[in-house]
Amino acid sequence: MIVGIDIGGTKALAVLVDPVSNLVEASVVAPSSGNGFELVESIVDLITKLDDQTAAPIDAVGLAVAGLVTSEGSVRYSPNLPSLTEFPLKERVSNAIGLPVAVANDATAGTIAEAEIGAGKGCKNFIFVALGTGIGTGLVVDGHLLNGSNGFAGESGHMTIKSDGDLHVTGRRGPWEMYGSGSSLTHMVRQAVSARTVSLDELNVAQIDDVLGSQLVSAMTSGNKQAEEIFGQFCKDVAIGMSNLVMVVDPSLIIIGGGLANIGSPLIQGVSEWLLKIVVGAEHRDPVRLELSPLGSDGCAIGAALLTKSLLNKLS
Amino acid sequence: MIVGIDIGGTKALAVLVDPVSNLVEASVVAPSSGNGFELVESIVDLITKLDDQTAAPIDAVGLAVAGLVTSEGSVRYSPNLPSLTEFPLKERVSNAIGLPVAVANDATAGTIAEAEIGAGKGCKNFIFVALGTGIGTGLVVDGHLLNGSNGFAGESGHMTIKSDGDLHVTGRRGPWEMYGSGSSLTHMVRQAVSARTVSLDELNVAQIDDVLGSQLVSAMTSGNKQAEEIFGQFCKDVAIGMSNLVMVVDPSLIIIGGGLANIGSPLIQGVSEWLLKIVVGAEHRDPVRLELSPLGSDGCAIGAALLTKSLLNKLS
Repeated sequence: MIVGIDIGGTKALAVLVDPVSNLVEASVVAPSSGNGFELVESIVDLITKLDDQTAAPIDAVGLAVAGLVTSEGSVRYSPNLPSLTEFPLKERVSNAIGLPVAVANDATAGTIAEAEIGAGKGCKNFIFVALGTGIGTGLVVDGHLLNGSNGFAGESGHMTIKSDGDLHVTGRRGPWEMYGSGSSLTHMVRQAVSARTVSLDELNVAQIDDVLGSQLVSAMTSGNKQAEEIFGQFCKDVAIGMSNLVMVVDPSLIIIGGGLANIGSPLIQGVSEWLLKIVVGAEHRDPVRLELSPLGSDGCAIGAALLTKSLLNKLS
Repeated sequence: MIVGIDIGGTKALAVLVDPVSNLVEASVVAPSSGNGFELVESIVDLITKLDDQTAAPIDAVGLAVAGLVTSEGSVRYSPNLPSLTEFPLKERVSNAIGLPVAVANDATAGTIAEAEIGAGKGCKNFIFVALGTGIGTGLVVDGHLLNGSNGFAGESGHMTIKSDGDLHVTGRRGPWEMYGSGSSLTHMVRQAVSARTVSLDELNVAQIDDVLGSQLVSAMTSGNKQAEEIFGQFCKDVAIGMSNLVMVVDPSLIIIGGGLANIGSPLIQGVSEWLLKIVVGAEHRDPVRLELSPLGSDGCAIGAALLTKSLLNKLS
């Protein structure tokens, strides 16, 4: 058995994967708060819980982390998990559990999962875009997953799309993830609730703290014009970043994952329309297909587990 | 002998290259105006002139064209050479001269030249950025020149960097090449001359129509503060687009070519300083090296000639 753990800003999701069928046999979740040492403890705890659920031994563990992760698996910088910056995560987890450990960027892991068992299977040019707290991406070009000189390729959420925009936590002005991420949509919807242009009733929630961007679709269904306008602007901002990537690497397919993928077809439709308008030379090229990830919120964790296969092949 | 022709918006530069030494033996220039048929005539004329200058036969011709060129060498869309959009350039030139012809995007050709005989030789992760009328780029990642699903990868000059910016001729708002190209710098300097904050004397030119962006450096040398400010803003805009590419593909080297490369070290220094400020996680990664192309304004034409080598290998 192999284990993959997706370590996000607030929680860690661990999945137990059968390395032959690639099926998820069990999954557990824990908070990811605390310093590096506490996080290692949580990870060990998650692995122990999964181990209790299987008779077969666990052979290796893959970790997916938001941020700059080198090809060798070192976390160099993680704005959403500051305690992991320059923390020797791989070594510490490996020492604690006595098993080989692989570490990769979360969206890179998600891209591997899409390429091997998801919507990217058999596709030589695709981009995986995870729309969650931030925006993570992975790029497969000419049949090859891009790594780059440090292994940092695919940090596209940090691309500047509005050079006179607001300052991001990274110190950069107007990056894509300030406009096209789940947290950006949630922020816009909560502002609309505060301004009383969208009501909690229309969103089907009890209080403003429970509002999530993805609920905007309910308000649109009930005919709220302001909700439609917010969603239209959001789809445009998502499309601007994607079209930048279309300009740079020319994919035939974009796979949407992350929390916002559960918006489903309104998101695909809204973003596709904008892509047709802004991709340069759109009338002289095939439209880029847009699909939802079939792996749902498990994608990055599954990809982290699949990462370990090459590790195990090297060892055996 | 092999020939490479760089077909720009106003002129076409043809070089005769020795396929063994890769040295340029002769070069000629002609205007590139007119419709597709007239352009084919100019190209044939350029090849004839080069043929007159060598005793050895010409075996193949490579054409470098700004715009969307498929992997098979069809020009699908060219904002700066509208007469070439969907024009069967390769077939027409090949029929006219009776030789094999290869066609590629101009910056792609420039990138091939850098990889084989320029500053990118031996480097597995580099970007070539041609700062001219527009911005053309080519990307080598993990030792591989990116093509993409249609062969359109590297159209990074069209990336949106200012989503609320002005409308470009392509219909897109705020693309990189509206701020970081040679024509954008020339436009800013001419505006400063009109506003009398920079004088023609300081630029060493007789009249405003002769002003080029690259001359701004003379005005900076003579201590003009406004000139320094314009150049600083320009370097920042160049760096914003480059840092987007650093986020997406993580290169270790960026090679600057195109007309603006003749600004030299002030450009390298100005852009490098901004890159250090805006690349995310700059303190946790090696700084990206910035170098001037050693091939000068011949780079794309040489690359077009080198393109034909794989064509000749396939034929022989």
